[in-house]
Amino acid sequence: MATSTAPRATPPPAPPALLTSYDAVRAATEALCAPLETEDYVVSSMPDVSPTKWHLAHTSWFFETFVLTPYLATYTPIEPRYAFLFNSYYVQAGERHCRAQRGLVTRPTVADVYAYRAHVDRHMRALLEQIADDRRHPAHSTIVLGLNHEQQHQELLLTDIKHVFWTNPMRPAYRAPVPDAATAPVDVRWLGTDEGVYRIGRDSDPDGEFTFDNEGPAHRVFVNAFRLASRLVTNREYLAFIEDGGYRRAPLWLSNGWAAVQQRGWTAPLYWEHGTSGWSEFTLAGTRPLDPAEPVCHVSYYEADAFARWAGYRLPTEAEWEIAASAAPITGRFVEAGRFHPGPAAGDAGESAALQLYGDAWQWTQSPYVAYPGYAPAAGAIGEYNGKWMSDQWVLRGASCATPRSHARLTYRNFFPSDARWQFAGFRLAADA
Amino acid sequence: MATSTAPRATPPPAPPALLTSYDAVRAATEALCAPLETEDYVVSSMPDVSPTKWHLAHTSWFFETFVLTPYLATYTPIEPRYAFLFNSYYVQAGERHCRAQRGLVTRPTVADVYAYRAHVDRHMRALLEQIADDRRHPAHSTIVLGLNHEQQHQELLLTDIKHVFWTNPMRPAYRAPVPDAATAPVDVRWLGTDEGVYRIGRDSDPDGEFTFDNEGPAHRVFVNAFRLASRLVTNREYLAFIEDGGYRRAPLWLSNGWAAVQQRGWTAPLYWEHGTSGWSEFTLAGTRPLDPAEPVCHVSYYEADAFARWAGYRLPTEAEWEIAASAAPITGRFVEAGRFHPGPAAGDAGESAALQLYGDAWQWTQSPYVAYPGYAPAAGAIGEYNGKWMSDQWVLRGASCATPRSHARLTYRNFFPSDARWQFAGFRLAADA
Amino acid sequence: MATSTAPRATPPPAPPALLTSYDAVRAATEALCAPLETEDYVVSSMPDVSPTKWHLAHTSWFFETFVLTPYLATYTPIEPRYAFLFNSYYVQAGERHCRAQRGLVTRPTVADVYAYRAHVDRHMRALLEQIADDRRHPAHSTIVLGLNHEQQHQELLLTDIKHVFWTNPMRPAYRAPVPDAATAPVDVRWLGTDEGVYRIGRDSDPDGEFTFDNEGPAHRVFVNAFRLASRLVTNREYLAFIEDGGYRRAPLWLSNGWAAVQQRGWTAPLYWEHGTSGWSEFTLAGTRPLDPAEPVCHVSYYEADAFARWAGYRLPTEAEWEIAASAAPITGRFVEAGRFHPGPAAGDAGESAALQLYGDAWQWTQSPYVAYPGYAPAAGAIGEYNGKWMSDQWVLRGASCATPRSHARLTYRNFFPSDARWQFAGFRLAADA
Amino acid sequence: MATSTAPRATPPPAPPALLTSYDAVRAATEALCAPLETEDYVVSSMPDVSPTKWHLAHTSWFFETFVLTPYLATYTPIEPRYAFLFNSYYVQAGERHCRAQRGLVTRPTVADVYAYRAHVDRHMRALLEQIADDRRHPAHSTIVLGLNHEQQHQELLLTDIKHVFWTNPMRPAYRAPVPDAATAPVDVRWLGTDEGVYRIGRDSDPDGEFTFDNEGPAHRVFVNAFRLASRLVTNREYLAFIEDGGYRRAPLWLSNGWAAVQQRGWTAPLYWEHGTSGWSEFTLAGTRPLDPAEPVCHVSYYEADAFARWAGYRLPTEAEWEIAASAAPITGRFVEAGRFHPGPAAGDAGESAALQLYGDAWQWTQSPYVAYPGYAPAAGAIGEYNGKWMSDQWVLRGASCATPRSHARLTYRNFFPSDARWQFAGFRLAADA
Repeated sequence: MATSTAPRATPPPAPPALLTSYDAVRAATEALCAPLETEDYVVSSMPDVSPTKWHLAHTSWFFETFVLTPYLATYTPIEPRYAFLFNSYYVQAGERHCRAQRGLVTRPTVADVYAYRAHVDRHMRALLEQIADDRRHPAHSTIVLGLNHEQQHQELLLTDIKHVFWTNPMRPAYRAPVPDAATAPVDVRWLGTDEGVYRIGRDSDPDGEFTFDNEGPAHRVFVNAFRLASRLVTNREYLAFIEDGGYRRAPLWLSNGWAAVQQRGWTAPLYWEHGTSGWSEFTLAGTRPLDPAEPVCHVSYYEADAFARWAGYRLPTEAEWEIAASAAPITGRFVEAGRFHPGPAAGDAGESAALQLYGDAWQWTQSPYVAYPGYAPAAGAIGEYNGKWMSDQWVLRGASCATPRSHARLTYRNFFPSDARWQFAGFRLAADA
Repeated sequence: MATSTAPRATPPPAPPALLTSYDAVRAATEALCAPLETEDYVVSSMPDVSPTKWHLAHTSWFFETFVLTPYLATYTPIEPRYAFLFNSYYVQAGERHCRAQRGLVTRPTVADVYAYRAHVDRHMRALLEQIADDRRHPAHSTIVLGLNHEQQHQELLLTDIKHVFWTNPMRPAYRAPVPDAATAPVDVRWLGTDEGVYRIGRDSDPDGEFTFDNEGPAHRVFVNAFRLASRLVTNREYLAFIEDGGYRRAPLWLSNGWAAVQQRGWTAPLYWEHGTSGWSEFTLAGTRPLDPAEPVCHVSYYEADAFARWAGYRLPTEAEWEIAASAAPITGRFVEAGRFHPGPAAGDAGESAALQLYGDAWQWTQSPYVAYPGYAPAAGAIGEYNGKWMSDQWVLRGASCATPRSHARLTYRNFFPSDARWQFAGFRLAADA
Repeated sequence: MATSTAPRATPPPAPPALLTSYDAVRAATEALCAPLETEDYVVSSMPDVSPTKWHLAHTSWFFETFVLTPYLATYTPIEPRYAFLFNSYYVQAGERHCRAQRGLVTRPTVADVYAYRAHVDRHMRALLEQIADDRRHPAHSTIVLGLNHEQQHQELLLTDIKHVFWTNPMRPAYRAPVPDAATAPVDVRWLGTDEGVYRIGRDSDPDGEFTFDNEGPAHRVFVNAFRLASRLVTNREYLAFIEDGGYRRAPLWLSNGWAAVQQRGWTAPLYWEHGTSGWSEFTLAGTRPLDPAEPVCHVSYYEADAFARWAGYRLPTEAEWEIAASAAPITGRFVEAGRFHPGPAAGDAGESAALQLYGDAWQWTQSPYVAYPGYAPAAGAIGEYNGKWMSDQWVLRGASCATPRSHARLTYRNFFPSDARWQFAGFRLAADA
Repeated sequence: MATSTAPRATPPPAPPALLTSYDAVRAATEALCAPLETEDYVVSSMPDVSPTKWHLAHTSWFFETFVLTPYLATYTPIEPRYAFLFNSYYVQAGERHCRAQRGLVTRPTVADVYAYRAHVDRHMRALLEQIADDRRHPAHSTIVLGLNHEQQHQELLLTDIKHVFWTNPMRPAYRAPVPDAATAPVDVRWLGTDEGVYRIGRDSDPDGEFTFDNEGPAHRVFVNAFRLASRLVTNREYLAFIEDGGYRRAPLWLSNGWAAVQQRGWTAPLYWEHGTSGWSEFTLAGTRPLDPAEPVCHVSYYEADAFARWAGYRLPTEAEWEIAASAAPITGRFVEAGRFHPGPAAGDAGESAALQLYGDAWQWTQSPYVAYPGYAPAAGAIGEYNGKWMSDQWVLRGASCATPRSHARLTYRNFFPSDARWQFAGFRLAADA
């Protein structure tokens, strides 16, 4: 029997882990665009909504501006004017295009934008090979930030294209409808927590898991005893609020909320329509009858707050949410499920694995979005990422059906203004103990 | 000598003339779109601007709604919801999409819209074969109207895409620049007309050349003796107005005009920019240095009026224009020249053939757009074509570099509000004799 | 026989006629304010409305600026800052207060404003004594203009305070209601005029009756044969239009008019209200049941135009109106009647003296307000009086129940934009012969 | 010597304490109006500003609606329509006049409003005699609330009339200027507090001092160690921020703050003007040179936040403020000082009595205005007083030069939106220990 004397092929060295992540995140963004026509990439249906091609380009601009230009000496932009077109709000990164006009720019074309992405990717891969997962390399942390940034834009890309399709009287669908198994209603249980001083938030740790700067510093808070609902409020429950005149009863609303109800003619969550056969809901799979077991979604803070008042409860604070969720695993329906719509709480919602803490819909809290004690943003343009938004908004916790699984975290602080409805935002109830 | 006994091939019968016209006009519209990318078809850069794909669809909707549906029994719409999406302003033709949202609709795609055009064309050809140029066929006059309607949208398509490209910081060009021969300035001559009662306008004549209903009835007007400039006001002349402080001197302006200057920050015609190397102008061939010999264009009525006051002249009335132009041939630079920009008056501008009466730029008159004595619109939705716009606008005469040659007429009454600047609109001066 | 040696008492010389006029006009303005409380003088209920105290001061500013300052060497303003506060729109007379803020200025007080008037009056009387009716004195024509200007503001003062009272939920009344005798409906007769060239307008004549510059030059127009209604359209007739769905039928309206109907929710003339006991109308004597015999009033051009279309008629041109009215005496219900509200046509409306040509309500014509041929405004700030408004408005003819009798003229050209409703504006019908 | 045999006069019984308070508060409101002309009572210079006569009437409406109508059987309103005109925002108390139109209502006149006050006062005195300080009487607590409510309107009356006068180009003064003694700058000291769990807020106590419902419940908070500045930020310090380009440097601002700076053209606090002789400030005593030793005032939250960032500090939280102030006496310059403008910190600012914790200017905190844990508003319309405003605003602590002394409290929570500048609002700095 002959033994081989041929040299054993050395397996190629594994690519750097960060390069693998980079490729995965970038590919995931483009995969979300697969169902779109060229025309769908172009428009903005309201000031909050950016065109798909802008999302594709802006996330590339982020790497170009904050990583390639400072850290890859050989890098040349494919088109210098993209720096103007695709800067979102980083004042310290130079002049930028007016947000309100993003949807009016037909060139670069979609093909041009994909070429831009490819150009950036080619150079990013070269740089990532150099860095070779060295966490001390000055670009490392910014690249990780850029990947998390791109994941945020993956979610925005979906929420924005949903609004674009909704604005179209033809009501196109992003994906084909998938029949769901019927689900039985799940009763709410109340999860109690004792009063005490708790530690929430998380310090940023260059050697640990990524967190945004606004998730820290870790700090202590005193919290009274409280109870948290074991699942999100459902469409069935929200319908009862509507049928009880919820949108017509001023005393249920914050004053600014009541003004919004009247000025904008709100009578139901965004994307709900009432026709001869009852309530339907527009989803990324088109319009379909409202499913009473699903969580209510696309409501503003004002609506979440009014419902809670009507129901005799309140929204949780973000500290309460984090304390109650601190031991739970990060499970749920994320973007990877391909559902792109919140689903009902599972039948075993009493178990910690099924509390709908993550996935399905972001959860409004009653905590305004302000800095944690000791918070200081990074120096320079990157410091504009989170800090300058710390006014006039509320914190949402958890994650949604449009959030990548790897993007969800216990300490994550999402934030939107009181009247925002186009996000996958629902809520759960809380009460004093 | 052998005589041929083979039967002589009978030449195929010529297609009906109206079918030939139909095919030519429809093809001309699509030819104008040849330089566009798919993305360019989608957006609206301001409320006055419609997306290219809307123009393509709306002109088809016109034939579908006013010709095919009533007169071709076998016709079935390719998509019933297009009736909602592509009705512009015909209240009597049913509910319609909000003009302000035309640029937010990504589906139907551009390909869908071309398929819609092909569907309409196929049926229109069948109908046109049936009609066989019978002017007594009830659809005949509406088809002719539809072709004139489509020619109007050809011009709008160009003025609208020019504004879309201008709105883009990348400043894309619609066509490659074509170098012009240098032209020498042409002096103005003054063409005199005696006072008297003149007949203007033209009655509609089912057996004659097409006219819009607003061009008639023919009627008499008394006109004082007057003089009309032999060419349009040039950029050189308009620059002198600017340099003399024209945009900073309130007494030169109508009150509403001065308010527009201040509220919108006007300091020059639309599409002019002042940089380190002087004035440049954005054209459908991109940005290029201002040519002083070309007619000033993209000015509002207010600017034309203020210039005339500054210059010691006035704008002509539409009656004066028509009386002075009545003997002149319809010559000039039309859309067929492929220049898409007004050009300088020819060196022999004194000859009647070169008075710039047509082509280059529409000419603001000091005549408000109101009905001629005895005017009555057609019954039904078609009657909304011109009549309901007879307030708060001014008449422009002539034709522009974006007007099809066959669309220009002596009695043609174009009309826009006082502050419209995105059209190819210039002006000529007049004076009392 | 003794002859008397006692000196015969020389009768005091009569004051100059212009001084008498001045005193009369100024006193008439103040008499209109008699029913007002101090608070009523202060506010502006919408941008078109000026506070009463502003009218009182602005008319004095006119004399101060255009007469006293240039022509009375000894004149010193009582407060130099009034030049800023009380200039309306004369750009060439210096900087001025923002129109939108006129109603926010509490000082000068009403008492201060009356002191300002007294100060101006004292000096004006001194100057008028000097001028002694010399028409060649350079101030003479400006003083006459100033008096006509003040008469215009007398009418505005009433229309403005009516709107102020209407805006108040308490609905205060300016005067006590006066019961009217019941009036029988008056049938319309149609007054015919032959086609021809007519002369309209009037040249200004320094030795003749005053006219505004916009009433001239006299000039010829060709007019087709036409018929004019013998009285104004009544509330009864207008109610039939409303009840026939006039405000819900787009085809009856100009496009801009239909937009106004929808955006502003118009369902009836301004000041009409519909309650359980039918239609009522707010008047300067408070709210009272609608009188069907009175002329409809407080309608926009759009409403007048839509009614005429609905009724199968049209509005007259201003030339038609002037030609038809040229032989009629200037009679009617003017401000001196103290009624402050239009009244029904008299029973003998067929007689020329009772055609409602003057008084009751201004009459919208279908003539846009533009310059007559050969019109040239005066040099300087005074030239801004009429000329710069010659766009985007319509001519109204006649006079109203708020116009001083001596202010009404055959050639008078009043003008307002298409959507103005707070003036005493009605209309009469016309038709082609 | 004769001794008097006359009976000793029995002293009249003291009036109930609450009646004395009532009379004092009501009289204080009217005393603040003494310098005003009738015209000054009428207008509203911006949506936040109510007319003086509205304040006078609304505070009376409060007693009428919430006290007299339910608790005094014999009470009849002087004018039932006042219920509509003078309800501010109590949805549960019935329909109400539109806030934006408060300044357009000339009747009731000022005299009518004083008559309304007298009518309410007469009946309130009768009721207060009945109640005789019985705290268990159901009206007692509402009367106390009504007095605190009126004190709030005393401050608003002053801030509003200041804005009215500022809006007037004549710049009238509310009071004569009073020369101040020159003051030397006072250095800042930093008052340290240790980390720990503290109790803040105060439960409402029917038998104790009045508090608003939003001041409770008392509850525990965990606070890190911190330092608080011993006095307010001065004009001198704020000028350094301006001169260092503070209003031109986007990175110093919250994103919404930067948008406000640009959209509104902010370059200095409200009421500051820069002229040839430097900075001046409009005060209730007219315009005067800026005093560098006085606290900066009339700044928005955004400006306070930007200054703090520029200075390397931060604003305190409301918990920090209350903890640091808990032992300090309630001293300072209140409305009773008649200064109506903040004054400089005293020379001995190091002493607890001179920390400028109260009086001079309200102090922006970095705490959003939300409910304390366990907060529940009262049932019915009174519950709208504070609770429905708990979104989109920030807490201010302390009191100002326009606050009545008896109205200031340790636990008082004033609140305004981020961009409000017309209040007497300044700020002090804080830092982590």
